[in-house]
Amino acid sequence: MQLPFDGDRVRGDNAAREQFYDARGYGTPRDGGVELAPVEAAHLLFRGDLEHLLDRRSGGEPLDFESFLASNAVSEVDFFVYKELRDRGFYLSPTELLAGDDADRREHRGNADRREHEANGAGDFVVYPRGDGPWNDTVAYRVWTVSERADVTAGTLQRIAACGSEADGASDADGGGITGVLAVVDEESEVTYLAVEEPTIAGSTYHDLPAVAGALLSDRVLVTDPPDALHDRAFYGQPLDRDEQPVQLSLVEAAYLAERGLLAVDGGGKRLVSRGRSVEGDRFDRRLRAYGALRTAGIVPKTGFKFGADFRTYADVDSVDDLGHSELLVRVLPADHTFAPRDLALDVRLAHGVRKQLVFALTHVDAGTDWLTVSRLTP
Amino acid sequence: MQLPFDGDRVRGDNAAREQFYDARGYGTPRDGGVELAPVEAAHLLFRGDLEHLLDRRSGGEPLDFESFLASNAVSEVDFFVYKELRDRGFYLSPTELLAGDDADRREHRGNADRREHEANGAGDFVVYPRGDGPWNDTVAYRVWTVSERADVTAGTLQRIAACGSEADGASDADGGGITGVLAVVDEESEVTYLAVEEPTIAGSTYHDLPAVAGALLSDRVLVTDPPDALHDRAFYGQPLDRDEQPVQLSLVEAAYLAERGLLAVDGGGKRLVSRGRSVEGDRFDRRLRAYGALRTAGIVPKTGFKFGADFRTYADVDSVDDLGHSELLVRVLPADHTFAPRDLALDVRLAHGVRKQLVFALTHVDAGTDWLTVSRLTP
Repeated sequence: MQLPFDGDRVRGDNAAREQFYDARGYGTPRDGGVELAPVEAAHLLFRGDLEHLLDRRSGGEPLDFESFLASNAVSEVDFFVYKELRDRGFYLSPTELLAGDDADRREHRGNADRREHEANGAGDFVVYPRGDGPWNDTVAYRVWTVSERADVTAGTLQRIAACGSEADGASDADGGGITGVLAVVDEESEVTYLAVEEPTIAGSTYHDLPAVAGALLSDRVLVTDPPDALHDRAFYGQPLDRDEQPVQLSLVEAAYLAERGLLAVDGGGKRLVSRGRSVEGDRFDRRLRAYGALRTAGIVPKTGFKFGADFRTYADVDSVDDLGHSELLVRVLPADHTFAPRDLALDVRLAHGVRKQLVFALTHVDAGTDWLTVSRLTP
Repeated sequence: MQLPFDGDRVRGDNAAREQFYDARGYGTPRDGGVELAPVEAAHLLFRGDLEHLLDRRSGGEPLDFESFLASNAVSEVDFFVYKELRDRGFYLSPTELLAGDDADRREHRGNADRREHEANGAGDFVVYPRGDGPWNDTVAYRVWTVSERADVTAGTLQRIAACGSEADGASDADGGGITGVLAVVDEESEVTYLAVEEPTIAGSTYHDLPAVAGALLSDRVLVTDPPDALHDRAFYGQPLDRDEQPVQLSLVEAAYLAERGLLAVDGGGKRLVSRGRSVEGDRFDRRLRAYGALRTAGIVPKTGFKFGADFRTYADVDSVDDLGHSELLVRVLPADHTFAPRDLALDVRLAHGVRKQLVFALTHVDAGTDWLTVSRLTP
């Protein structure tokens, strides 16, 4: 079969609609026939279900798979994601095809290959639940595609996460909700799927502490005569030795306790914050804010250094002797951070390997902290 | 016991020498007595083996553990590493104590707490083989200490690696050689030991290839009619689908093949390199250089994206159907790269988790590539 391509859509008649849309979930019905997005047409060309497109822009010149993919009409990154999900047995539709008007469509096109990726609100693809297709109103995933070489802003990840928490009518028929997914195409065209979600940050660690006094060393605070509750129950600091005293506090722990009037040091909390800034710069303020937000939520943050993260966390600490597995790995970042997909892949892989949930704490200068969790997904 | 501190050394008489040096490996003999470095004196104070130091600079004022550690005389980072290795049952000596003159000594002092770490040539500590001590000439490790907050230059890592490959007289009595170690102290004073070495980069993958032609898409090259050897034996590219053709090449694979006259594309190799630079900048040139060096060594680099690295590598590929476990994870960096210890910890932990050797390819602008491997060490 050959179908005409007008630079924006491939259009087919009623027979094409039956063959492609009704039977196999390609395209969308339009005026009795079918309208296919370029990425769908590319897939049909690749499979040999379409022989050629006839390029209306050049008087009907035939386009085969290779020349079509090499043109600007279709994003290569979109093609690999589309093909991969089809190979996994999913039906999916390009969002541009479902969008109302041409301006929306153009906005959706070809984002994936750009150097900096700014997500549109609806994603690049709508993926239907397994066994379902574009004929119904059920959605399993919204997928944003991106090349491993494009940058991804924190705002993009937040938009992706938001699609999962929207309680709109188009949720999964099973009530499972929609998951927002970043699909990264690497340089060898393998696709990695990353689910982006808004985590629940809540624990139950609250202990009453008496105020203590400490001495600031160069990069930590020594509490010579600590009450048992400080380390053993509330899990602040580390004993300097096995016999449990003195206890040393990290600068961020010390600054947090001083802020709350629970630690006295020469020069006060300000001196601790100023020391922290002198070694870490703004990062110290961000880490202190995220630390405080976690503690307020009843969660104990401890250093995540061995995992290359800012914190590992414990949600429910009653006694240090009875400490469970830490649940989260937290990376603290400025709210306007730009991610390289490779760094995301590294963090996600590591967290997966140590059975922890990867959480990004996006901290605003004068506001709170936004939380995002990213995990590997096999659709 | 109380001993005098002159701001540089703690000195004891013959009895102190017997108690500290002869029996327990602290300090170095000098003029019939013993001379202790500040970090050793801090450890003796911490253990209660010394009651006080008498500070000669202030007319003999007593210094206890806390006030001594809070002073500038001893590096807190050095103290934690010294204590940790002692706790593990090792004897070790501060390098400054073994250095010939005072200028050398000052050069050695307190590096660890600085924001940017430039290694001296000899390390901060000499660690003796287990069961041995400063009384003989055997050395197991040279240890450079650093705070997790200090930056570590590539030059520092290269110096550390070099100490392991020096065939000097001071090698381990077992002939095991000396290992250069970076000891990172995190904000909670836990120590992570990283062995830094010069790896052997060698494989056996060499296959004759006929020249092929390809078409440049936006971010990869499509070879429509590939010879079997291209992918199946030499492991270039990936088949677009299960039926094995066409094969797509990544830009770095394509540029390497074009450079060697094995791939023809419109516009030639220059067009591939220019496309690579347009999406990756200088990084593309570095990756192409490292890619070429690995191929020249008989090693096949494939994308390391899923591990957050540049390449994973296969040393001995005879046929893709018979592919083993990839051995190396390669991260390509400029030769003057500065590492954050946290990033090192992340890479090392991930590589360990997937049973691969982490290798940094440090690429010079107009010269070759230097290789470094970093791995977690339990002394």
